[in-house]
Amino acid sequence: MDTFIAPPGLSGVVVADTTIGDVRGTEGFFHYRQYDATTLARTRSFEDVWHLMIAGSLPDATERAAWSRRIEAASSLEPQMISSLTAVMSSLRGAEPMAALRTLVSAYGVLAGLPALWDQSAAEREETAVRIAAIVPWLVAGSYAVSAGEQPRSPRPSLGFVGNYLWLVTGEEPSQEAVRALSRYLCLTVDHGFNASTFTARVVASTGADLAACVVAGLGALSGPLHGGAPSRALDALDEIGSIERAEPWAREQLAAGERVMGFGHAVYRGLDPRSELLKETAREIGGPTAELALEVEDRVVAVLDEHKPGRQLRANVEYYAGVVMEACGIPRSLFSATFACSRTVGWTAHILEQCEQRKLIRPSSRYVGPPVLDNPTGPNLAG
Amino acid sequence: MDTFIAPPGLSGVVVADTTIGDVRGTEGFFHYRQYDATTLARTRSFEDVWHLMIAGSLPDATERAAWSRRIEAASSLEPQMISSLTAVMSSLRGAEPMAALRTLVSAYGVLAGLPALWDQSAAEREETAVRIAAIVPWLVAGSYAVSAGEQPRSPRPSLGFVGNYLWLVTGEEPSQEAVRALSRYLCLTVDHGFNASTFTARVVASTGADLAACVVAGLGALSGPLHGGAPSRALDALDEIGSIERAEPWAREQLAAGERVMGFGHAVYRGLDPRSELLKETAREIGGPTAELALEVEDRVVAVLDEHKPGRQLRANVEYYAGVVMEACGIPRSLFSATFACSRTVGWTAHILEQCEQRKLIRPSSRYVGPPVLDNPTGPNLAG
Repeated sequence: MDTFIAPPGLSGVVVADTTIGDVRGTEGFFHYRQYDATTLARTRSFEDVWHLMIAGSLPDATERAAWSRRIEAASSLEPQMISSLTAVMSSLRGAEPMAALRTLVSAYGVLAGLPALWDQSAAEREETAVRIAAIVPWLVAGSYAVSAGEQPRSPRPSLGFVGNYLWLVTGEEPSQEAVRALSRYLCLTVDHGFNASTFTARVVASTGADLAACVVAGLGALSGPLHGGAPSRALDALDEIGSIERAEPWAREQLAAGERVMGFGHAVYRGLDPRSELLKETAREIGGPTAELALEVEDRVVAVLDEHKPGRQLRANVEYYAGVVMEACGIPRSLFSATFACSRTVGWTAHILEQCEQRKLIRPSSRYVGPPVLDNPTGPNLAG
Repeated sequence: MDTFIAPPGLSGVVVADTTIGDVRGTEGFFHYRQYDATTLARTRSFEDVWHLMIAGSLPDATERAAWSRRIEAASSLEPQMISSLTAVMSSLRGAEPMAALRTLVSAYGVLAGLPALWDQSAAEREETAVRIAAIVPWLVAGSYAVSAGEQPRSPRPSLGFVGNYLWLVTGEEPSQEAVRALSRYLCLTVDHGFNASTFTARVVASTGADLAACVVAGLGALSGPLHGGAPSRALDALDEIGSIERAEPWAREQLAAGERVMGFGHAVYRGLDPRSELLKETAREIGGPTAELALEVEDRVVAVLDEHKPGRQLRANVEYYAGVVMEACGIPRSLFSATFACSRTVGWTAHILEQCEQRKLIRPSSRYVGPPVLDNPTGPNLAG
């Protein structure tokens, strides 16, 4: 068999063809299907983008109404399912939200008796995909409520996906401004190329496992600090900085200590991250002391970074303004990653459905670099 | 960035260097570290092989005693943990065993508050790895017991890993023959190159996620029908065949219907699968009607396959005799995949620990092949 030694981390290795979207890092551009993702985030509802990802096209008015009914039905769980999932939430009370969500999606798959992807028709797979993405907000918010000693709230689908999520988390009817701001964030984070979690979900899908298994694997990858790990870190850093005067010395201290400056730079984008551009605009619209601090700190930190790492063009990444926007919308910091997971689940499910069409197991090779194989291991046998 | 278009499924693409082992498909040979895996399975206990995978060497007598104490400690869960996990088992009563195991390992990670891999020292990571592999047998057997309306049994570490598993599942003190036979099966299935589940676990580990997240992702991949899916299928086929005379017509019917003949052929091995060779010998030693039928049916099916697919050298794979051996040991057919998971978890954890040393995110690329990107999506905006 011909072998190819891939660069570390499979960097630059094209592992699949996709019609779902792409990231053009050097251009500071990414798209979902044939649409610029930032334009979608500005002009379309989360539901429209979800339809684009799963059905392959933006909906017209009739399709939008049907899609809305379909999401409403998918969000509604049987009383027995609600009570079993709530029991699992109670067993996990106080859990780290991403680990809890991973466990709850897994439990949902068990309780629903999800069959292997390959034992489902394409229509059944799509239905399962919509169902799982539809209930993730309830799982996130319900687990949070149970940890606080409350009962999970009932969904209010009339508020839309984004408004309903805010209602489930905060227990308050959200403002239009909050819905608009969070909708932008969620639309911007639905998909982003073959990142580690999307790739993980596709590898699991390639085995024909059930859809929950694929999403659970994606959630595990997303929880890693090198991937979706901690959108709250940039906000923690802002807290640490505290005031504009501290921005420059803080950045210099980080660099002197050999630390990465949280919220700046991205593996794929050189220069501007198109997601942070729109979120910056959104943060400016929302206003408030944190947004104002973030905007001023950005300029100072970028100046220090340009001075210390000339040519690297380290700029604010999606994490930086995401935290500002989520906090302004009333989302607790501990739920930032899990909120990210609400939108990314839509992207994963689109990729899982696409992977299923290929019906090919992903099974790479490795190169053994240990000591040469011995003829016979010595030592006592099993009985000895 | 230079790109390389990988063949479908990453076939033949070397994605990492490893010192854990290798599969030489054309030679019908595989090894763990520097030892032939089939020799290890013949001559070493499961615990010795586990030590080899995690510590990197076969243990001497002193190391073996220390390792044994360490496994015993790792297998012992706090009463509060037992009660929380049992509560989750109860919520999932009647669950498909692999999906239940995936959920329970995830729940264990939550309840133990496992930190990100990168927030652990190498020693802490290793301890977590040993702990998770040590409790998987209890999770499998406990979930099975709870589904049957019983309480999970308490581990009996003095029986060793294999004997304890049989005790937990069957509630009976296992025979030496059963322990020996199952030990061979488990030793043979600890690791097998960069299969889909091992690769999945490594991709998740590359993000720095917690160790449970990595194992849970591996379990999801292993549950796929194209991967570890159904070691019971070959036994189901034997049931369907029923008698030796039916073997040949049955094989011809399968081929005529365009079906894969379950239990024969492997993606990597051309010709003999070294695992099935040793398991065949083990089945012969155990004897009994199923083993006898399996031995005779194999010859007839291979003859039909050679006639219909000359040159393909389709031979009995690991699934074929694995089922015969597990059934003879008293393991219910519904637990075959989960039993496989007991040994493969050891392999995954070795790979997860190795992946951590590389500290490099696995993030491949894709090629967009959809319609060209439009300048502007049309349609009503968010408010419209």
